[in-house]
Amino acid sequence: MNWRRRTMYIRKEISKTEAVKYFTDKNDEYKLDLLGGLSDGEITFYTQGEFTDLCRGPHIPNTGMIKAVKLTNIAGAYWKGDEKNKQLTRVYGVTFPSQKELDEHLAMLEEAKKRDHRKLGKELSIYTMDDDVGPGLILWMPNGTIIIEELEKLAKETELDAGYKRVVTPHIAKESMYITSGHLPYYAESMFPPMEMDGEKYYLKAMNCPHHHKIFAAEPKSYRDMPYRIAEYGTCYRYEQSGELFGLMRVRCLHMNDAHIYCTKEQFAQEFKAVNDMYLKYFKIFGIDKYVMRLSLHDPEKLGQKYVNEPELWLETEELVRNVLIETGVPFVEVKGEGAFYGPKIDVQIWSAIGREFTLATNQVDFAQGRRFKLEFTTQDNTTDTPLIIHRAPLGTHERFIGFLLEHYAGKLPVWLSPVQVKVLPISDKYIDYAKQVSLKLKKADIRAEVDERNEKIGKKIRDTELLRVPYMLVIGEKEMTEGMVAVRRQGKGDTGTQTVDEFIHAISGEITERHDN
Amino acid sequence: MNWRRRTMYIRKEISKTEAVKYFTDKNDEYKLDLLGGLSDGEITFYTQGEFTDLCRGPHIPNTGMIKAVKLTNIAGAYWKGDEKNKQLTRVYGVTFPSQKELDEHLAMLEEAKKRDHRKLGKELSIYTMDDDVGPGLILWMPNGTIIIEELEKLAKETELDAGYKRVVTPHIAKESMYITSGHLPYYAESMFPPMEMDGEKYYLKAMNCPHHHKIFAAEPKSYRDMPYRIAEYGTCYRYEQSGELFGLMRVRCLHMNDAHIYCTKEQFAQEFKAVNDMYLKYFKIFGIDKYVMRLSLHDPEKLGQKYVNEPELWLETEELVRNVLIETGVPFVEVKGEGAFYGPKIDVQIWSAIGREFTLATNQVDFAQGRRFKLEFTTQDNTTDTPLIIHRAPLGTHERFIGFLLEHYAGKLPVWLSPVQVKVLPISDKYIDYAKQVSLKLKKADIRAEVDERNEKIGKKIRDTELLRVPYMLVIGEKEMTEGMVAVRRQGKGDTGTQTVDEFIHAISGEITERHDN
Repeated sequence: MNWRRRTMYIRKEISKTEAVKYFTDKNDEYKLDLLGGLSDGEITFYTQGEFTDLCRGPHIPNTGMIKAVKLTNIAGAYWKGDEKNKQLTRVYGVTFPSQKELDEHLAMLEEAKKRDHRKLGKELSIYTMDDDVGPGLILWMPNGTIIIEELEKLAKETELDAGYKRVVTPHIAKESMYITSGHLPYYAESMFPPMEMDGEKYYLKAMNCPHHHKIFAAEPKSYRDMPYRIAEYGTCYRYEQSGELFGLMRVRCLHMNDAHIYCTKEQFAQEFKAVNDMYLKYFKIFGIDKYVMRLSLHDPEKLGQKYVNEPELWLETEELVRNVLIETGVPFVEVKGEGAFYGPKIDVQIWSAIGREFTLATNQVDFAQGRRFKLEFTTQDNTTDTPLIIHRAPLGTHERFIGFLLEHYAGKLPVWLSPVQVKVLPISDKYIDYAKQVSLKLKKADIRAEVDERNEKIGKKIRDTELLRVPYMLVIGEKEMTEGMVAVRRQGKGDTGTQTVDEFIHAISGEITERHDN
Repeated sequence: MNWRRRTMYIRKEISKTEAVKYFTDKNDEYKLDLLGGLSDGEITFYTQGEFTDLCRGPHIPNTGMIKAVKLTNIAGAYWKGDEKNKQLTRVYGVTFPSQKELDEHLAMLEEAKKRDHRKLGKELSIYTMDDDVGPGLILWMPNGTIIIEELEKLAKETELDAGYKRVVTPHIAKESMYITSGHLPYYAESMFPPMEMDGEKYYLKAMNCPHHHKIFAAEPKSYRDMPYRIAEYGTCYRYEQSGELFGLMRVRCLHMNDAHIYCTKEQFAQEFKAVNDMYLKYFKIFGIDKYVMRLSLHDPEKLGQKYVNEPELWLETEELVRNVLIETGVPFVEVKGEGAFYGPKIDVQIWSAIGREFTLATNQVDFAQGRRFKLEFTTQDNTTDTPLIIHRAPLGTHERFIGFLLEHYAGKLPVWLSPVQVKVLPISDKYIDYAKQVSLKLKKADIRAEVDERNEKIGKKIRDTELLRVPYMLVIGEKEMTEGMVAVRRQGKGDTGTQTVDEFIHAISGEITERHDN
């Protein structure tokens, strides 16, 4: 392995003529194709020992810095990502500064494979997809729907406490709305194609914001109404290339933990900070202890194309957001050219229990749409002003968040999120009636319980229940029935002793209402 | 008014030649147009005194039976309902067997005008519509969303108790699904036009059933899983002519209290009866004491066009449903030619407090889609069978049901449904702090409370709160603050005495959790 020899990487700028000659001699059609798009001054070659190639760089100084390498995968890839072109083979590999770090990374990937949300999603009957419905369109089965409803309940409680009101809006709107919002043209490629009806074009919504703006505008607003916070677990439709769809992570129909806060400039910092605090509250509930906020800014060169053409407002709002992040001491990095088209945004990156990174949620500032939609409120001195808008979705989408949770917990969801919280296991048919009584008592206490009535050995019942990641098992035999007790097994911990049904209900109810993490 | 003279109506069959001659002599282009679509044997004339006209009938025997008449309205109407034709004038009128009944009817209409859900919807900030979103597409404002969420909570509790599971499905699917389901071609004219994407046509769902069938089919089912009941407050999109849209009553986006029950033939009667009982439970909660079920049957002449071509299954399932209705003693009528394309259905007609009729909800049997979707379950003797499917939506759609409730209660919703349940009214600024403490205490007890902090006289605060139909007002003055009490006013009843805050919370909480009708 010649990189151990500490070969230098040598960078050299080459004229286009010289570069074309070099690859013509080598008969390299691909590099010649690439050179077609480059001019003098943009072309660099890198040489490592006897191997020279066209490359923009950068490279590490020499191969001696490479300590641990693993080739992981190969895959077919169309030249320039265009399926009309020839298919080449892409070789994937990773390298780490030490063998130990490489081993840890490979172990994490191995663990991630076991925790693959697509595998768990099927095993635990969370969701399904169907060819007749279409790719990237999730059908949430009863178990998945319980998780969704628990997450929505958490969001509703949290948002009610934080002074949000709720709204419900349709999934479509006319073209004119998306011209006003700027989704057409700025976001057109991510939208579904239109439906033509009554001489109008209707689009599926890719975001909830324009509908919410219409609700803000439906009745006159004054400074007394501000901040006006409206929330909706809104379902949006986004066009993703079918090749990019991936389980729950990349879908075409997404249920978003959305809300919009309309506020004055004076209220902005406090509102933005409150949203950040809400993120931190959620991270705590889900045991997410590694996260970073990525402040995505505009790219001045793309004003008017990718970003609304308001250079000063961009700088002003970016500064407002940066200050909030600095003041609250949240870890963050800045990235140019990743903002939303209407303002800067914060993307929240979180790491699962096994150290995989997820981009989960966003928190965005919007100085553009308020004016585009002519939103206004009467100020205290009886003039009118346009609100600033915060777009936020701390729990992201159900799709991505539940995908994350399945990996994070390896399918062993906390009790409050578990589709079945308790499985009652009679050791023989003789105890089924008592098992049913116990189950009924649990259900009346709002605990999701089921009885395993199958004619199977208790060992098999326990193994099957473990596989379904049910957090609690109550084993029922002669002793338990006679004494009115239950023998409690905790998923992954085994037998934890015998309790009365009431004692058990009391304990598990606390765990559920307080949303204990595992 | 010549009908008092007891003129007879005389019916006469006429040959087409004779009829054409008659209207050609009269130069009546419209009647000639109608005759073009008729053949010998189908043409009847009715004569009343000197007036003769083409009419299919039937008529009452003589004008002496007409006792009380009122012309109510005129409106432009296109000939044959086609906007390419000339506009004529349609004259509306009503007649009753007695003046008293006519007067009662006119008084009811007058009351209905005051209770118009569009007027109340605006006054109480329930919903709005917007030109940029599109006609028939409701934007539910915060107050409307509270009503929606309370209704959904009721439905979820009721369905959980009745053994339903919940699912969440996307709003679109490929054309192939609707060809399988038969919505294309049988229901095409009520569907939105397709979106073309990736070489496929995608349609907004007009019903939730096909998506639910896919969930049934996602995992193998056995007799142990039956009946399999899945529920979703699903949002459907239906194309209605823009001229037919009407407030919340005729819309294009509808949130349906939907569920599908997959059962064996042996389970059918019990399941169907359980659904009927659920209707009756809801009627009681909402104080609906007049209702009738309309059993809609197929029309044998339209088999293969409007109805799937299975004459024997139609008769068999119609008989099953009829028997359940007879056994349960629910009032019902039968109507030919109104069934769904896949089976007979029950439309539920209810009457509001002022005696207006609403078609609310449906309960349908489906013997066709199970086979079309190749749904099956393993029977106890290890063969496979196709389930019967019950489609049911006892609360109808949010749109129509909330429209009904607004009229039924004249906007004075029961406490559990009221967007604001308690308004705290300090008689001057001096008592605002105490008012806020009271309000906070109510909120902590999950009661929706607000403080009227405006600098207004208490009389005006009470009047404004009455207009917003808030059920309870707590008036706060010196005496109340000093003694830690509240003076309670009930909407429409006035002052009901002084209570401690805890006493009031106890009373109103009972009213809310038990969902008292007004």
